[in-house]
Amino acid sequence: MANKVDIAYRMAAIQPFHVMALLARARELEAKGRDIVHMEIGEPDFDTPAPIVQAGIEALQSGKHHYTPAKGLLELRQAISGFYLQKYGVSVDPERILITPGSSGALQLLMAVLINPGQQVLMADPGYPCNRNFVRLVEAESLSIPVAASNGYQLNVNHLQQYWNKQSRAALVASPANPTGTLINTVDMQAMVDFVLQHGGHLLVDEIYHGLTYGVEEQTALAISDDVFVINSFSKYFGMTGWRLGWLVAPQAYVDALDKVAQNIFLAASTPAQYAALAAFTPETLAILDQRRDTFQQRRDYLLPALKQLGFAIPITPEGAFYLYANCKHLTEDSYSFCLKLLEEAGVAVTPGKDFGVNKPEQHVRFAYTTSLDRLKLGVERLQQFLNK
Amino acid sequence: MANKVDIAYRMAAIQPFHVMALLARARELEAKGRDIVHMEIGEPDFDTPAPIVQAGIEALQSGKHHYTPAKGLLELRQAISGFYLQKYGVSVDPERILITPGSSGALQLLMAVLINPGQQVLMADPGYPCNRNFVRLVEAESLSIPVAASNGYQLNVNHLQQYWNKQSRAALVASPANPTGTLINTVDMQAMVDFVLQHGGHLLVDEIYHGLTYGVEEQTALAISDDVFVINSFSKYFGMTGWRLGWLVAPQAYVDALDKVAQNIFLAASTPAQYAALAAFTPETLAILDQRRDTFQQRRDYLLPALKQLGFAIPITPEGAFYLYANCKHLTEDSYSFCLKLLEEAGVAVTPGKDFGVNKPEQHVRFAYTTSLDRLKLGVERLQQFLNK
Repeated sequence: MANKVDIAYRMAAIQPFHVMALLARARELEAKGRDIVHMEIGEPDFDTPAPIVQAGIEALQSGKHHYTPAKGLLELRQAISGFYLQKYGVSVDPERILITPGSSGALQLLMAVLINPGQQVLMADPGYPCNRNFVRLVEAESLSIPVAASNGYQLNVNHLQQYWNKQSRAALVASPANPTGTLINTVDMQAMVDFVLQHGGHLLVDEIYHGLTYGVEEQTALAISDDVFVINSFSKYFGMTGWRLGWLVAPQAYVDALDKVAQNIFLAASTPAQYAALAAFTPETLAILDQRRDTFQQRRDYLLPALKQLGFAIPITPEGAFYLYANCKHLTEDSYSFCLKLLEEAGVAVTPGKDFGVNKPEQHVRFAYTTSLDRLKLGVERLQQFLNK
Repeated sequence: MANKVDIAYRMAAIQPFHVMALLARARELEAKGRDIVHMEIGEPDFDTPAPIVQAGIEALQSGKHHYTPAKGLLELRQAISGFYLQKYGVSVDPERILITPGSSGALQLLMAVLINPGQQVLMADPGYPCNRNFVRLVEAESLSIPVAASNGYQLNVNHLQQYWNKQSRAALVASPANPTGTLINTVDMQAMVDFVLQHGGHLLVDEIYHGLTYGVEEQTALAISDDVFVINSFSKYFGMTGWRLGWLVAPQAYVDALDKVAQNIFLAASTPAQYAALAAFTPETLAILDQRRDTFQQRRDYLLPALKQLGFAIPITPEGAFYLYANCKHLTEDSYSFCLKLLEEAGVAVTPGKDFGVNKPEQHVRFAYTTSLDRLKLGVERLQQFLNK
């Protein structure tokens, strides 16, 4: 007897990434011999730095592939603590650091431990699409707050004052943010920390693009308060995407509960990845990473004026990550069709606004500068021809 | 202003692993120079087979550490499909296979896609403790059904007839099971498949200990029906615990929804682990794994009668995994205190029944034969002296 397809209600609220369909189509075209300029991919084009890879190889050679404790290797948590002191001048007890399978794992832990069904998590729209779904999966609600260039595409304390209500339990902010590449300054962060703590809630701060900032020195929210939850990752700045490794810094009082969930839902993060990451904080690796940051900055400095010249509006200069969030309303009424057509006709792949929320997505596309300057220049040339047709 | 500690209600229902406290105490004693025989650890004592490690190293050397698609490498899904055909004579379309971060990832996907809040998942007690919590995390309920030696410590169709109700949505069974090491025979599995499908529900079958069976040939539930969900792992038989890699086979109609959740909650499983696992199905690796299985069998064949002789009751012979679930009611009234005392006084670590449910946990302990025959013999000697005191 065949069973009928009966999928849980929550799935109706969970969207796939629309860019995946585009990426699949791009791969099809490539298989047929077409050259595609990829400006849709949210992953650095650099390989993992050689010292990290080498540490991973040595870990495997010496049999380091059994389970670690759920919170992760103490040695790695100590190294991260040392990094906070060295980079930010902030003292973070390694006991407050949990190693997670990507920052995704950290977000899962936070939702499980902090958010009751029916409660709300406030977040900016546009924003990273998965955030809404981590909230949805624990039967809670995301309250998406429209942000604009006028407020740097970021939440601030005025938003919290306006939107915080009895059901609100946490605000989730990202600095630098995806898709907009903008940062939250320390004054605004402090005001949000104060507001949320005064209202008995939690501030969750996504710092996964830390290290990738251009012309500004980013500061961790941990410099402001020990009562914030900070999410970070080895994926972006450290170039370890496929290794699936991140971390979470939590107030001490929440660590045991987070550990308990980690034991249950993923047992521990990848062991070879954890040993490899021990090499992430050496001067040798950091020198490589700083060079790469300079390369990203050169790309941004090229692409930003070039896109503006083509008619895209990018009203504030994104100071971090590797994204430009561009308003295309003078070029199209429907950014998704625009993306499809751009791919088919010009061989350029970019991400449609609808992957980032419901705040004027049809007017926006995201460009990722995760490909070489030469390829970006080729992409801009093709865009120009496409727009002049 | 300090924030009060305010943890989500669900956390009250989520227990830590009690064995973790024991393990921590064992490590303390070891740090002081005490020798501890570890019979509590649910992880093979063997390293990952050399060909798999070598494939992992080669993947790292050739830059295979970027993201893979959320469903995993097609090449690996094809290799798993080939393994089903070769080992079980069952044809499984690679399109129905999703690679997950451990079998934990597979369980998360299933709960998200199949189970609504308030619905029930039936499972055996004693059972793997995390299973209840995967259900709890989507605000659904596990219905723990007490099983006993008389029914092979497994659910059967009589249990389903007795317990299935309007809220029931799925039954989760494991063959071989943790902590009991028992299997479900094909006749019983078929009857459960029929029952669950007739009632519009789902049968979720945990086969993560497949390959580790002694004197019997296990069959996959996929031989019975394409409508079951099968969870498997590279951790146990394939010896890849710390790599965090598993898989899920689903009916075709559910694959897109599962993929959507995977994209959101973990993006993809570890890339180096996936490339390493490509070497798991070669004749060379399988020969190593078969030798290890024989070693596990020798250990079981030694430990089972030895424990019985000491007064533990193990009424049915466990034919799989690497566990003996022993009734200790003639030796103690409280298995947890017994475990603590055994560790402190005799230097032997075993897992207390309370980690596996509420069905007479105080009468049970779990022995894992994940240490060498010599160490098991030493453990039995120490147990004998401890019990004779």
